[in-house]
Amino acid sequence: MINQLVGEIKKKEAPVVVGLDPMLSYVPQFIKDKAFKEFGETLEGAAEAVFEYNKGIVDAIYDIIPAVKPQIAMYEQFGVPGLVAFSKTVNYCKSKGLVVIGDIKRGDIGSTSTAYAVGHIGKVEVGSKSYYPFDEDFVTVNPYLGTDGVKPFVDVCKEEKKGIFVLVKTSNPSSGEFQDKLVEKRPLYELVGEKVNEWGSEAMGDDYSYVGAVVGATYPKMGEVLRKIMPKTYILVPGYGAQGGKASDLKPYFNEDGLGAIVNSSRGIICAYKNEKYSKFGEEGYADASRAATVDMIEDINSAVR
Amino acid sequence: MINQLVGEIKKKEAPVVVGLDPMLSYVPQFIKDKAFKEFGETLEGAAEAVFEYNKGIVDAIYDIIPAVKPQIAMYEQFGVPGLVAFSKTVNYCKSKGLVVIGDIKRGDIGSTSTAYAVGHIGKVEVGSKSYYPFDEDFVTVNPYLGTDGVKPFVDVCKEEKKGIFVLVKTSNPSSGEFQDKLVEKRPLYELVGEKVNEWGSEAMGDDYSYVGAVVGATYPKMGEVLRKIMPKTYILVPGYGAQGGKASDLKPYFNEDGLGAIVNSSRGIICAYKNEKYSKFGEEGYADASRAATVDMIEDINSAVR
Repeated sequence: MINQLVGEIKKKEAPVVVGLDPMLSYVPQFIKDKAFKEFGETLEGAAEAVFEYNKGIVDAIYDIIPAVKPQIAMYEQFGVPGLVAFSKTVNYCKSKGLVVIGDIKRGDIGSTSTAYAVGHIGKVEVGSKSYYPFDEDFVTVNPYLGTDGVKPFVDVCKEEKKGIFVLVKTSNPSSGEFQDKLVEKRPLYELVGEKVNEWGSEAMGDDYSYVGAVVGATYPKMGEVLRKIMPKTYILVPGYGAQGGKASDLKPYFNEDGLGAIVNSSRGIICAYKNEKYSKFGEEGYADASRAATVDMIEDINSAVR
Repeated sequence: MINQLVGEIKKKEAPVVVGLDPMLSYVPQFIKDKAFKEFGETLEGAAEAVFEYNKGIVDAIYDIIPAVKPQIAMYEQFGVPGLVAFSKTVNYCKSKGLVVIGDIKRGDIGSTSTAYAVGHIGKVEVGSKSYYPFDEDFVTVNPYLGTDGVKPFVDVCKEEKKGIFVLVKTSNPSSGEFQDKLVEKRPLYELVGEKVNEWGSEAMGDDYSYVGAVVGATYPKMGEVLRKIMPKTYILVPGYGAQGGKASDLKPYFNEDGLGAIVNSSRGIICAYKNEKYSKFGEEGYADASRAATVDMIEDINSAVR
């Protein structure tokens, strides 16, 4: 799957992933009205509104981006109906040829991590049958529990040729509270980066590993160091745009081959119609606004990192 | 909710929580046969089998324990139908008067952590209505992203009088890889413990905080230190039994009031019928075997910590 992701990034000349993280407040009123008319102001109604909203955006941008990253929390907040919408979103994006990165940030130990892995990127056995329950292509994984927590995901990756992105240095302001603490004079995130490199070395695709890393756009100096520690690791970079990360800061996240990183934007793309710059599209044209913002983002990133 | 948990622990004289972490291989054949006959060897069939299995165990033990801890990964592995079974399990346990700790180990940042919090321990708004989607009483939370990741959960706890248990020192063998690293001569888990104490100080119940901690039974020396760092924090202790933790090691996790900790066992209880000690109950008597194992566990813990 890492080979497919790299292939799509090259083909579309877009090291960009769009985060499908829909808050209900982002969804245009006409979509909510339609969903609530059919399902009422219920969890099912909210889930339907979110799925229709996603579908509009995906239809407008699938041909110019390699991947999407649905944030499962935004669906899980609507309970089981929300998770139905998550599953439908994953399947719809895959039907459009997109690589799907489930932003699930799971992490547990042993058989519990295996359960998350089979549920999201593998298959589960039921009697004599087997099923791919959520069937994303990649998922994000939290490393706090150590190798016991990550290894079961890596095993499923190898079996299914899927991938993970392990949180190394996150984009949020307080990420340094624990991640930056100095351990033998080096920050913890560097040790995590070394482990990611080690876990990934036994699960290699053609040029990059099935095991990627998350490193926030908001800390470019750290990105530069981590790039060197994890040369064969694809880096998923959140924090561009709404969180303050700039394209001009992103060059250190890439390798000399122009590959090695994929930059995420969520709100900046899916909520573009609320941005003055794209306001001419109006609510009805929210998906066209998202496409215009995606085109601008791809140009912005490419101009800075090539 | 922490007051209710403490009250139930006192009333039932049982600082014990049973982990409802059902692997399909744990479920007796006669339950699987019935579920597969009705739903086929499908995700729905697996989910039904798991729920019926849980129901039998809960019916057999709800009067002697204060709380249960369903591990969501074991349900999530069966996709949406599995999460329906998780939700049904939560609701069923609550209908029996049990405090429900959702072992979800979620953790993200800002509005995303808020989404997890409202989905699991709070309410979500849909138009003019609001809903409690999963409605557990407590959830477990991963702290790797720092205060930005935990604070949204604490805010929802205060609003809803619910609670969380933050991972501090986990019970697994490799938990030390990052958690034990020395930061200014002190292990990282102590810093996390201090943060838990700080986060919890602004969300106090009568005697203990809404913000608890997870500290594995397998590291009693660390438990002793953490007990002192977090005096008002309830400690959820996994790792007893199947993972190797002994009752005689657990005294340091408790305060002098005999409170302050609740010890989890999962496999040792729900799979008791497979243990030679309880084999006389047979598969058909799996729930009675679980009750016998629960009675033994409560006696074992109480004899060691009182």
